[in-house]
Amino acid sequence: MMYDFRHILSTYDISRDQAEFIIQTAKEFEPYAKKEKSSDQLKGKVMASLFYEPSTRTRLSFETAMLRLGGSVISVTDPNTTSLFKGESWGDTANMMSQFADIIVIRHPEIGVAQKFAAVSKAPVINGGDGMSQHPTQALLDLYTIYKERGGIDGLTIAMSGDLKHGRTASSLAILLANYNVKFRFIAPKELAMKREVKDLLTAKNIQFEETENLEEGIVGVDIIYMTRIQKERFESIEEYEKFKGTYVLHRKLIEDKNPDVIVMHPLPRIDEIHPDVDDLPNAAYFRQAGNGVTVRMALLSMILGA
Amino acid sequence: MMYDFRHILSTYDISRDQAEFIIQTAKEFEPYAKKEKSSDQLKGKVMASLFYEPSTRTRLSFETAMLRLGGSVISVTDPNTTSLFKGESWGDTANMMSQFADIIVIRHPEIGVAQKFAAVSKAPVINGGDGMSQHPTQALLDLYTIYKERGGIDGLTIAMSGDLKHGRTASSLAILLANYNVKFRFIAPKELAMKREVKDLLTAKNIQFEETENLEEGIVGVDIIYMTRIQKERFESIEEYEKFKGTYVLHRKLIEDKNPDVIVMHPLPRIDEIHPDVDDLPNAAYFRQAGNGVTVRMALLSMILGA
Amino acid sequence: MMYDFRHILSTYDISRDQAEFIIQTAKEFEPYAKKEKSSDQLKGKVMASLFYEPSTRTRLSFETAMLRLGGSVISVTDPNTTSLFKGESWGDTANMMSQFADIIVIRHPEIGVAQKFAAVSKAPVINGGDGMSQHPTQALLDLYTIYKERGGIDGLTIAMSGDLKHGRTASSLAILLANYNVKFRFIAPKELAMKREVKDLLTAKNIQFEETENLEEGIVGVDIIYMTRIQKERFESIEEYEKFKGTYVLHRKLIEDKNPDVIVMHPLPRIDEIHPDVDDLPNAAYFRQAGNGVTVRMALLSMILGA
Repeated sequence: MMYDFRHILSTYDISRDQAEFIIQTAKEFEPYAKKEKSSDQLKGKVMASLFYEPSTRTRLSFETAMLRLGGSVISVTDPNTTSLFKGESWGDTANMMSQFADIIVIRHPEIGVAQKFAAVSKAPVINGGDGMSQHPTQALLDLYTIYKERGGIDGLTIAMSGDLKHGRTASSLAILLANYNVKFRFIAPKELAMKREVKDLLTAKNIQFEETENLEEGIVGVDIIYMTRIQKERFESIEEYEKFKGTYVLHRKLIEDKNPDVIVMHPLPRIDEIHPDVDDLPNAAYFRQAGNGVTVRMALLSMILGA
Repeated sequence: MMYDFRHILSTYDISRDQAEFIIQTAKEFEPYAKKEKSSDQLKGKVMASLFYEPSTRTRLSFETAMLRLGGSVISVTDPNTTSLFKGESWGDTANMMSQFADIIVIRHPEIGVAQKFAAVSKAPVINGGDGMSQHPTQALLDLYTIYKERGGIDGLTIAMSGDLKHGRTASSLAILLANYNVKFRFIAPKELAMKREVKDLLTAKNIQFEETENLEEGIVGVDIIYMTRIQKERFESIEEYEKFKGTYVLHRKLIEDKNPDVIVMHPLPRIDEIHPDVDDLPNAAYFRQAGNGVTVRMALLSMILGA
Repeated sequence: MMYDFRHILSTYDISRDQAEFIIQTAKEFEPYAKKEKSSDQLKGKVMASLFYEPSTRTRLSFETAMLRLGGSVISVTDPNTTSLFKGESWGDTANMMSQFADIIVIRHPEIGVAQKFAAVSKAPVINGGDGMSQHPTQALLDLYTIYKERGGIDGLTIAMSGDLKHGRTASSLAILLANYNVKFRFIAPKELAMKREVKDLLTAKNIQFEETENLEEGIVGVDIIYMTRIQKERFESIEEYEKFKGTYVLHRKLIEDKNPDVIVMHPLPRIDEIHPDVDDLPNAAYFRQAGNGVTVRMALLSMILGA
């Protein structure tokens, strides 16, 4: 196939055709990610896993994907390691790392670091999350989860709830989904409403979206509800926070009463946004979603590095 | 063979037959652990090494065992990583990790975390030490060391010295040895005497044990002396500590005078409980014991994950 | 061949014949380090990567070399891990580690730790940098870089600039180069002049060296300029520092005006000693030098551990 993914930096760069190709490739990797088969496709290849911001989940998901393809991993996991290179330019670090590794996964609290890396790197760069901006592989595994849970993407209505202003997962996914014929419902306190740029993109693409502050109403009639965390410290006053506290918690009764067919997703870790009484419902897709992370990342590594 | 070890959580769960089987399996892995042969038995398998409490020795011993079987490793080594998951339930973490890895080794300062993991995990869980409670693989390598050094277990008298109240290694081993026809001598200050529950178990099983505060007397006539550390901060007063300070230090002269045939063991690291002048005596088994850790862990990983 | 490198601890121990042999072996590993070929030569071997001082560059360079030879890696990367072994002797740590691993790479802020390790270790030990003293594998990759950039070593004049008193890279390299027919020019403030012991060695071997405080003069006529960092905190007064600040910065104009053929090296990371406008000149060898680190370390690991 003709999809040349040199870097994976942002969901803005991923077309519908590319997304479809990733979904189809991921399907082939299911038995490998599910530990039913093992692969040696990337034997002899080295992935650099550079996590300048702690994220055990994303890091281990990538490392598992690389190891299950027969590759190996070098890693930087200490967030304080940044100070190591204090004063060193990203260009110098990227130059060195790309001489060592065949592919680089980088996570950093600053927006744009993955792009800076890619500008210099001799090896492909995958953005493992940069500040509040982008988390493209999370969006791809979320897309794959929606595809698997619903059997397709077109025609769906997707609700997103939580801190849509600061969270990078919901916005990265919305940008990716904007390639499809979908509708959105954004459920968030006004202070934490979906980013302007995302809404502008949707408008430009003639994609319908609604906004509401109310989870109980927001969940009605949607195919997917994508929950994210609301953080107390994001509010201007305690009073503001108290107003919303607990109203963005999804529990079993709400699903049963308002939308018994909804698929519930969450990028994890969850704190209290989804009550544990939801876990045993077939609706709860968030653990399957975490497993899909390995599948999709195997597909991506294979597409980029495979022969 | 019929021994199905899904998890290894506590020496309370390990029967004599199982222990024997582990010993026999470990013998087969000697040439692999001693770097004379190499194995690919666990090629394609991934071990998650989750050390929420620092323990380079146990972690590297497990990782070496997995790598020498041809498997690979993902790891969490930063004790502060716990904060990563602050608020996330053990269940959620275990669910995710067990989707990534084929087997999980977990060490945590809190008692019972390995059990909580195992309750949810889809993959086998090995307790790599939980607080003051259990360290079952240490007990198994200690048992294997006794077997190798003495040619058998039944009929032996085993002395244990040090902080027997808080230390998990001595009590885990005593519980395992309670499956055999052995006698114990517990050498410790009253304040740090062997745990009540262990003594109750021995009593229930009609296993003889003596208690003494005196190392010089305690060492006489035993087959094995298992030394552990005494920590100053465990005493109620400095005066209490001063009384014992130095009296729990094993040195060459004491061995030569009181029990020239005794086998000296220590889970390591040692601080000053064993004087370096003991190191060159054939009695000193503690370095061999550390090496046995890789052997026994290879056997365990192979038994649990091997075809 | 007859070169038995049990340990690599110091460039004082490396003869010209050995250095030549390493250079020739490294040449054979170029296609492997450049990712054009892959090797399984060290399959089944385990390298312990013990970095008690942070050094992502050196650590990842060694780990990449081991992985590209088909071996595997266990590692300690947290500098605070030293406290783990607080009170444990280096001998005990070395004994244990050498039972686990086939080879040990150790970096430590204290001078002489690698030697202490090697004295006890049952496995070969490579010094990955000990305090201000030695960094022999850096010196070997620097030597290899000079060889590649200049086509040989004899007859060259090598300038070294920066903090030659505290830096271990320049002095380790100078000691290694003292096996060859070379001349030196040391460019440093008086306070940071090349170590006495190095100058004594050169004098004893009848190797010419000049000393100057002036970079603009020092660069004239040399074949290689080896830049290192000057640290503010090394000066007795701010006034002293201000005197030199900026005068040890190499920029494009200086090269073009004074020595357009000079090869520029730097062990990296650089802060501001080399202006980025030098990067695009063919003279800039420092990124190629970083890549040579993997090549030379592959050669060393293969020589020590290969069949």
